Amino acid sequence: MIIALDAMGGDNAPVSTVHGAVLAARESKHKILLVGQEKVLSEELLKYHKRYDLTSLNIEIVNATEVIGMGEHPAKAVRQKKDSSLSVCAKLVADGKADAFVSMGNSGAAMAAALFYLKRIEGVLRPAISTTFPTIDGSCLIADMGANVDCEPAHLLQFALMASIYSEKVLGITNPRVGLVSIGEEPSKGNKLTLAAYELIKNTNLNFVGNLEGRDIPASKADVVIADGFVGNVILKFGEGLAEMILKLVKKGLKKHPVAWASLPFLWLAIKDLRTKVDYNSTGGAPLLGVNGVCVIGHGRSESKAVKNAIFAAANAAEHDLTHEIKAAVEKYSVNAQSEKTNE
Amino acid sequence: MIIALDAMGGDNAPVSTVHGAVLAARESKHKILLVGQEKVLSEELLKYHKRYDLTSLNIEIVNATEVIGMGEHPAKAVRQKKDSSLSVCAKLVADGKADAFVSMGNSGAAMAAALFYLKRIEGVLRPAISTTFPTIDGSCLIADMGANVDCEPAHLLQFALMASIYSEKVLGITNPRVGLVSIGEEPSKGNKLTLAAYELIKNTNLNFVGNLEGRDIPASKADVVIADGFVGNVILKFGEGLAEMILKLVKKGLKKHPVAWASLPFLWLAIKDLRTKVDYNSTGGAPLLGVNGVCVIGHGRSESKAVKNAIFAAANAAEHDLTHEIKAAVEKYSVNAQSEKTNE
Repeated sequence: MIIALDAMGGDNAPVSTVHGAVLAARESKHKILLVGQEKVLSEELLKYHKRYDLTSLNIEIVNATEVIGMGEHPAKAVRQKKDSSLSVCAKLVADGKADAFVSMGNSGAAMAAALFYLKRIEGVLRPAISTTFPTIDGSCLIADMGANVDCEPAHLLQFALMASIYSEKVLGITNPRVGLVSIGEEPSKGNKLTLAAYELIKNTNLNFVGNLEGRDIPASKADVVIADGFVGNVILKFGEGLAEMILKLVKKGLKKHPVAWASLPFLWLAIKDLRTKVDYNSTGGAPLLGVNGVCVIGHGRSESKAVKNAIFAAANAAEHDLTHEIKAAVEKYSVNAQSEKTNE
Repeated sequence: MIIALDAMGGDNAPVSTVHGAVLAARESKHKILLVGQEKVLSEELLKYHKRYDLTSLNIEIVNATEVIGMGEHPAKAVRQKKDSSLSVCAKLVADGKADAFVSMGNSGAAMAAALFYLKRIEGVLRPAISTTFPTIDGSCLIADMGANVDCEPAHLLQFALMASIYSEKVLGITNPRVGLVSIGEEPSKGNKLTLAAYELIKNTNLNFVGNLEGRDIPASKADVVIADGFVGNVILKFGEGLAEMILKLVKKGLKKHPVAWASLPFLWLAIKDLRTKVDYNSTGGAPLLGVNGVCVIGHGRSESKAVKNAIFAAANAAEHDLTHEIKAAVEKYSVNAQSEKTNE
């Protein structure tokens, strides 16, 4: 696979992006296109010449003169900066010169670039950003995680269809259980949006397990967790913050008991697995579902390991051509979604 | 204070409710009215005659022949079962025979009973259920936690006003910081509801700290956390589930290292504080804000300790007459809320 990496995007770029690309190239056969300001990137890449044989690494620098900042207005920046590292990445995929692109930069701009250059899959109303979240048994895929803050029932239906396909094809979950975030298990519980979305999702061939209460998410009651982007984003960031708080309090608690100090090293071992579970550096990145091509969006604070994992996630997604399946699923249930609207 | 307790409500009633009442009566000077089926309650209360001098305990049984089940339709059950323990509790407060009522039963029905018998405070559009949630520094008050799933901006404004008053007067927080749950710190981030609510809350004399991202809640960036009931409910239940998952994984991780087994007892000590923090049995219950009188709603799974703490929370709230302050605040800003609507 050929992966275009927005080497200028993210809080730690280009150090983390170039290092991540080097790691990914060392550990796989994928070709990495380092997209960004040639001079900056070649200098950064040269830092590794003592450790690795750079000529043997499957990395190529693709020049892009502009950079889109983290704070810039997404759509405006993408429209205006046609030679930004992000725009060039998206164009490489649109032109068939790369199989996927990865960015740790301005996530709104990454989405805008994907929409602008790759376009939506026919029939998809709103592409969704999905990401994995740790659960007691492993992880689940949450969609949407913030791309669409005001949703219609038909949007949630499509998130469910797309995320279920991704879960099955890319993550390898057989017949993934799809759940809808709500405030009670009964179909009668929810807000206007989820009540209507419930009916739409119920009438598909998805393995729909119904409503999920907040606590059902970490308890692993579904493989695919559907929510509008507002709720999905709040859940994810709240989970990040809460996990951090709990680990801090456990540490603080142990330190209060001098006799327990000896146990601290063992606690670190125990917490290490957990950290790996909740650490966004391990999950790699979030695929944008519903566009014609693969786009993986990483956390702005990503370190090199996260960049490497995002590259692998993108390559993995690109290996499974999801476009046709998403198109078919969306077509199949579009009638239902529209008739639902007409009935209102 | 005289507290009416719905002794028949909750998964563990009447065992937990009667025991909770006994504990509360032993540890305070409050008078507890045990409301429910006289025979059942007197038999349950008699179980304690060997341990305590029942005549010295300030507990009185008030007969109510009917019981509202956890699964019953809230409004319908309250309308039909006028002699249910819950309805009688609400009537006792409405008639001035009790200062507050507490229920661990059907929370929708508790809210319906409060609305039916106590009525809304003049000007309040929607009463809100608020509850405390642990943070790194202590706790915050979240409103609404599920009473109102589809909200208007003016509702969120009123939740902010009411919860801020409760936080200041009852919880004793000076000039509580009020935050609005959203998906980014900037005022421009959010969905239609929160963007409009932001403008309304900004124009009050509240100590408004702006938008909160999910991670800001456990990080203690606000004392009062405002969200619609759907989001509030999902956050709370997700937090409960996530905390449970993390503690399980830490334990499991420690058990994997035989040499760390010796440290387990110390870990328990460390986790104990944390459990107390996240345990709903300690927080006592959730006050219903915006009705003419005090109503505290507890978790259906409450044990006796939670019942006791809910009684204390109710007595504490009753000691501070919030009705006038909520009425004044709601009146003061009702013009803003309405003109905002007219401008739309």
